[in-house]
Amino acid sequence: MSSNWGNHLKLSVFGESHGGGIGAVLDGLPAGEPVDMEELSRFLARRAPGKDRTSTPRKEADLPEILSGVLGGVTCGTPVGILIRNTDTRSGDYGAMQALARPGHADYTGFLRYGGYNDVRGGGHFSGRLTAPLAAAGGIAKQILAHRGITVGAHLLRAGGVSDVPFDPAGIDEETLLVPGNSPFPVLDTDAGDAMRAEIERARLDLDSVGGVVECMVIGFPAGVGDPMFGGVENVLASILFGIPACKGVEFGAGFAAAEMRGSENNDPFRAREGRVYTETNNHGGALGGISSGMPILVRAAFKPTPSIAREQRTVDYRTNIEAVLAVKGRHDPCLAVRAVPCVEAAVSLALLDLLLGAPSGKGADTSWN
Amino acid sequence: MSSNWGNHLKLSVFGESHGGGIGAVLDGLPAGEPVDMEELSRFLARRAPGKDRTSTPRKEADLPEILSGVLGGVTCGTPVGILIRNTDTRSGDYGAMQALARPGHADYTGFLRYGGYNDVRGGGHFSGRLTAPLAAAGGIAKQILAHRGITVGAHLLRAGGVSDVPFDPAGIDEETLLVPGNSPFPVLDTDAGDAMRAEIERARLDLDSVGGVVECMVIGFPAGVGDPMFGGVENVLASILFGIPACKGVEFGAGFAAAEMRGSENNDPFRAREGRVYTETNNHGGALGGISSGMPILVRAAFKPTPSIAREQRTVDYRTNIEAVLAVKGRHDPCLAVRAVPCVEAAVSLALLDLLLGAPSGKGADTSWN
Amino acid sequence: MSSNWGNHLKLSVFGESHGGGIGAVLDGLPAGEPVDMEELSRFLARRAPGKDRTSTPRKEADLPEILSGVLGGVTCGTPVGILIRNTDTRSGDYGAMQALARPGHADYTGFLRYGGYNDVRGGGHFSGRLTAPLAAAGGIAKQILAHRGITVGAHLLRAGGVSDVPFDPAGIDEETLLVPGNSPFPVLDTDAGDAMRAEIERARLDLDSVGGVVECMVIGFPAGVGDPMFGGVENVLASILFGIPACKGVEFGAGFAAAEMRGSENNDPFRAREGRVYTETNNHGGALGGISSGMPILVRAAFKPTPSIAREQRTVDYRTNIEAVLAVKGRHDPCLAVRAVPCVEAAVSLALLDLLLGAPSGKGADTSWN
Amino acid sequence: MSSNWGNHLKLSVFGESHGGGIGAVLDGLPAGEPVDMEELSRFLARRAPGKDRTSTPRKEADLPEILSGVLGGVTCGTPVGILIRNTDTRSGDYGAMQALARPGHADYTGFLRYGGYNDVRGGGHFSGRLTAPLAAAGGIAKQILAHRGITVGAHLLRAGGVSDVPFDPAGIDEETLLVPGNSPFPVLDTDAGDAMRAEIERARLDLDSVGGVVECMVIGFPAGVGDPMFGGVENVLASILFGIPACKGVEFGAGFAAAEMRGSENNDPFRAREGRVYTETNNHGGALGGISSGMPILVRAAFKPTPSIAREQRTVDYRTNIEAVLAVKGRHDPCLAVRAVPCVEAAVSLALLDLLLGAPSGKGADTSWN
Repeated sequence: MSSNWGNHLKLSVFGESHGGGIGAVLDGLPAGEPVDMEELSRFLARRAPGKDRTSTPRKEADLPEILSGVLGGVTCGTPVGILIRNTDTRSGDYGAMQALARPGHADYTGFLRYGGYNDVRGGGHFSGRLTAPLAAAGGIAKQILAHRGITVGAHLLRAGGVSDVPFDPAGIDEETLLVPGNSPFPVLDTDAGDAMRAEIERARLDLDSVGGVVECMVIGFPAGVGDPMFGGVENVLASILFGIPACKGVEFGAGFAAAEMRGSENNDPFRAREGRVYTETNNHGGALGGISSGMPILVRAAFKPTPSIAREQRTVDYRTNIEAVLAVKGRHDPCLAVRAVPCVEAAVSLALLDLLLGAPSGKGADTSWN
Repeated sequence: MSSNWGNHLKLSVFGESHGGGIGAVLDGLPAGEPVDMEELSRFLARRAPGKDRTSTPRKEADLPEILSGVLGGVTCGTPVGILIRNTDTRSGDYGAMQALARPGHADYTGFLRYGGYNDVRGGGHFSGRLTAPLAAAGGIAKQILAHRGITVGAHLLRAGGVSDVPFDPAGIDEETLLVPGNSPFPVLDTDAGDAMRAEIERARLDLDSVGGVVECMVIGFPAGVGDPMFGGVENVLASILFGIPACKGVEFGAGFAAAEMRGSENNDPFRAREGRVYTETNNHGGALGGISSGMPILVRAAFKPTPSIAREQRTVDYRTNIEAVLAVKGRHDPCLAVRAVPCVEAAVSLALLDLLLGAPSGKGADTSWN
Repeated sequence: MSSNWGNHLKLSVFGESHGGGIGAVLDGLPAGEPVDMEELSRFLARRAPGKDRTSTPRKEADLPEILSGVLGGVTCGTPVGILIRNTDTRSGDYGAMQALARPGHADYTGFLRYGGYNDVRGGGHFSGRLTAPLAAAGGIAKQILAHRGITVGAHLLRAGGVSDVPFDPAGIDEETLLVPGNSPFPVLDTDAGDAMRAEIERARLDLDSVGGVVECMVIGFPAGVGDPMFGGVENVLASILFGIPACKGVEFGAGFAAAEMRGSENNDPFRAREGRVYTETNNHGGALGGISSGMPILVRAAFKPTPSIAREQRTVDYRTNIEAVLAVKGRHDPCLAVRAVPCVEAAVSLALLDLLLGAPSGKGADTSWN
Repeated sequence: MSSNWGNHLKLSVFGESHGGGIGAVLDGLPAGEPVDMEELSRFLARRAPGKDRTSTPRKEADLPEILSGVLGGVTCGTPVGILIRNTDTRSGDYGAMQALARPGHADYTGFLRYGGYNDVRGGGHFSGRLTAPLAAAGGIAKQILAHRGITVGAHLLRAGGVSDVPFDPAGIDEETLLVPGNSPFPVLDTDAGDAMRAEIERARLDLDSVGGVVECMVIGFPAGVGDPMFGGVENVLASILFGIPACKGVEFGAGFAAAEMRGSENNDPFRAREGRVYTETNNHGGALGGISSGMPILVRAAFKPTPSIAREQRTVDYRTNIEAVLAVKGRHDPCLAVRAVPCVEAAVSLALLDLLLGAPSGKGADTSWN
């Protein structure tokens, strides 16, 4: 419940945007797994703000200190304590709005939930900044999956009405899958990326913001992992993906488009090649009955537009319930979906490692086709 | 994990389609809640097959026996044991296909997951029949919510390319919300329903099937319930909704459409009326930061087309990995989304009761507008 | 919470003594494990009442129906549904006392907990009868452990002031470990058993009852299993053992006696023989730091005397809080610890299988000495 | 599992004795609870070493930094992050013994569990030092209980063969209950305390150590809290108490002595006074059927003697399995049970707050007699 997650892994996230620090404890990792801190830093840099105009100009070091559970660059098997200190916080920017509910934010609901005792500075525990420890924990999980030949990659599929080239559901090579993560802007098609950035910049100049869709694919994940009915691949991934602030929808494979299809269209014919089973198409998105099929796992997460916009909006003072008008100041990403890309990778990595650790043999059947 | 679900409630579902019986244990219900067995039967009848050509002609009694936890029509507070005996099972229909993986089904993945030891007759533990105990448990939760002034209703929003009138996100009256559940076909607009049925029948005659989208709304749910980051309304609902077989996508409020909007469009302005806060629009779907806002909770679940179709499909024998051709015999719904409507209501009811029981006061703030 | 237990296994127990039936769902068992129903029946017969004067003359069939999860005598990997119908219930015996709190029973606390809505007939959900589904689930776990060379055995170490020969903590052979379970009275030393029975019979004639201590040993359990700090062998075993009604204490190895020792006495020196590590003595009871050492696991559980006694006792009417006098009628074991012996074996088996399934490799290191 | 604990509260402990820091995340606390940091410091000082010869001369600041979840001295309702930096660590003392399994320690079992990857310096994650974050989290829970009129107190009942005056099971006044915690040595009877200290010092001079029993009583806890069968008061308390290193036994009320009694002796007669129910005696220890009775909760935990002793002991090198002789150097408490007293209070406080938060009304019935 609350900021805890996981069945076989246990993740516990803590912190407020302007408090003493944020972080996480990740318990249940296998012992003896190398953790490459440089690679982790590069991964976290993808989430960090300040890279270009599409993200907030706040500069966060966001380099996590690993307090425990890793010794000499290798996991101990004991809980990994992760600490990120808060810096560059200008609380003054937020002072005036403390009692005005920012539309699209959790100010009002948080006030009700916590009886007004929660720390509202910078969004407090609701801040997008809390995705930093999630990304750090997930970045470690991603490396552990990589040791098992499992590659997790995501890109910004839609933003500002522009589409990137979708991942081929039936599978792509690892090199292609990693392109968006290695690019300054997380897309496959740089022209599409440029068009997205132009739309995001246009929104920013309009004192507005845009939403986006992140698409994530996993190749190399073994078949036979996941537990029906409620411990399936989809349940477990969705349970963590909806923990990324602003996520409003999650779909697998053909997803909502499957609802528009006929069975003859949507069913993925099984085939065999060199004695291994695969499906011709991958509308199922890598899981049938909650259990991985060995086909790429394909998930998309919809993110709403950044709710903090500089335009005037109608709202109420949540302490008095009196109506008011508000323009959100401060520095905010006009499209939070850009920085959500590595967060989705992190969440998916945690979910899949959790599933893998819960598999009967701790490794699934050796039947991944990719 | 597996067929267990819940934080404050604990649901444990068991059974195979053609075994000795299916059922569930639902633990953690409050004591002293009336359970109206007639109402429960009517609710379950909505899920039962055999009502018209859009559903399978199998006749199931599916009337659950409540073994424990309810005495004199009132909950005891102790675990509720639910048993449904299996009847009218014609195993012969399935015999021939036991080693041929039905496309879109969990035959292949289940074989890998359970090493071939699972009961495959009628889909075994993967059968849509397992939604009967889910519906029974959820039907009880739905009644308990109703005692608190919370109404859960769903309809078939899309099927066969036809749309029902969507629920007004900003809220509808209870009477309207209950129309689909009281209708022979679960829609608001009977013309749309007739068009859907025609499309479903057309698919059936084509030896094919269609998918659909179920939309569920909850009115009267108190504000201030739900726990960020991973115990939020969206996380908890998604974690159980993806447990309904064939569910491939879940979205809240504007959902995937929010990703196409600008912030100024998607943000729901806060307003106050008679001292109570509400939002003008409801793109957020009733939860901000994972916490209920007092606005209607709005969720949509996408269901793929029934995978069992009588057309010939390519597949493999999963014991030998040799390719083959298969036409699925037996009796199947051409559009499983129709019977999924009450299942979604059941799952949503369980999720919301779980959230409510976990709320600090066990009841949330008294700020629901509806 | 409540009647749910387990991390890697999930046990959900339901039922009331005089309701429609009692049972359990056991989820998370590995697939492909043979389940010998005859052996299970013999195991459950050890818990069943009516064998001699030391147990209640109620005759229960208590033969469980396995509703799901086992096919052709082999586990499917899906949840095992267990149902035991209630028979031979004479509710009349209990009618008069419904509002008089039986001392030592949960009548009063149950009334408070459930607001008077719980089923009090025969003790309801608090009845010792609820150990029948626990024993059935545990009996299956015990067989699965046996397939891995792990033997679980228990005996009545103390009753009525008489001691059986204690298990040698450093280890005993499997044959000896199984003697009590195969005997009409669960002790190693039949003379001690006769003396215990005489004391129990004396108590019965005095309209009284006696307590007892059950000692359980496990040999063959692999080393390296268990998770500090809260998922250790002791935590997990205690969490389920205290679920057996009337259990008031649990200790491991030297237990409370260790508190009276000096370190030089209590520390178990490590030794090696044929390249395998063992300890000379076993004051630690098979777990150090919560992790199994490969030495026998040794646990003792204290059971209070049967609270139902025919003597007059002071009490109150818990609906009126008026004082009264009560003599408990009905048929009761004068020493419930006798029938607790297989229940302890069942609980220990479930706990150890849960730990084993959570071990990194699902099997622990191959270093058990026994 | 592992270093996670709790149902309604979630505690996640991390850290190694000589790593970057130790700490905990405590999630699920109610919002708006004052946290008195001075009082917390005084509480933690009771656990800190270095006070006299009965404890290790290591000087630890052990003052926790609260990173989140508390603002202006009041809980926010969000996760409380607790960090304690490691200082005064002399790793050199431990270097020589790294591959020699210290008898009574988890060196050998930890090696097997973590494949040799765990941090063994100072005991690593198994160190008694890990009770510092447990005590910090529990100290906060203790304050929250105190706001509800619930007082938790413990004393050293037995050590070195000497007994303190036991708590009167039927109840003591709050002032008396707090005496041991406010004393330099945690006993009621200072003469007994002096005798214990003499025995502990004698053991130290003998290069040896002694065990002890901690007795904890809770007054003011409401009746009607706790869930049979596995969420009962005893199950929940035991599940965390066995997480304190060196705890080998836990008993409630009369505990193991109840096993020696007759029912007529052990049953606690119910009485009523001024319309409130109580029991004449308190052999049940405050819980019947797992549910609190309103009588004082009474629990005892047995601690083995400090395993680190300076005497020569037989052991093995756990990397080579070759026998050796070892004398443990470094600074160690000759009787760890002394410092375990506040740890038991902390663990009991966490357990009872967890139970309370899970009670139907979040507060239990208002029927505590004390």
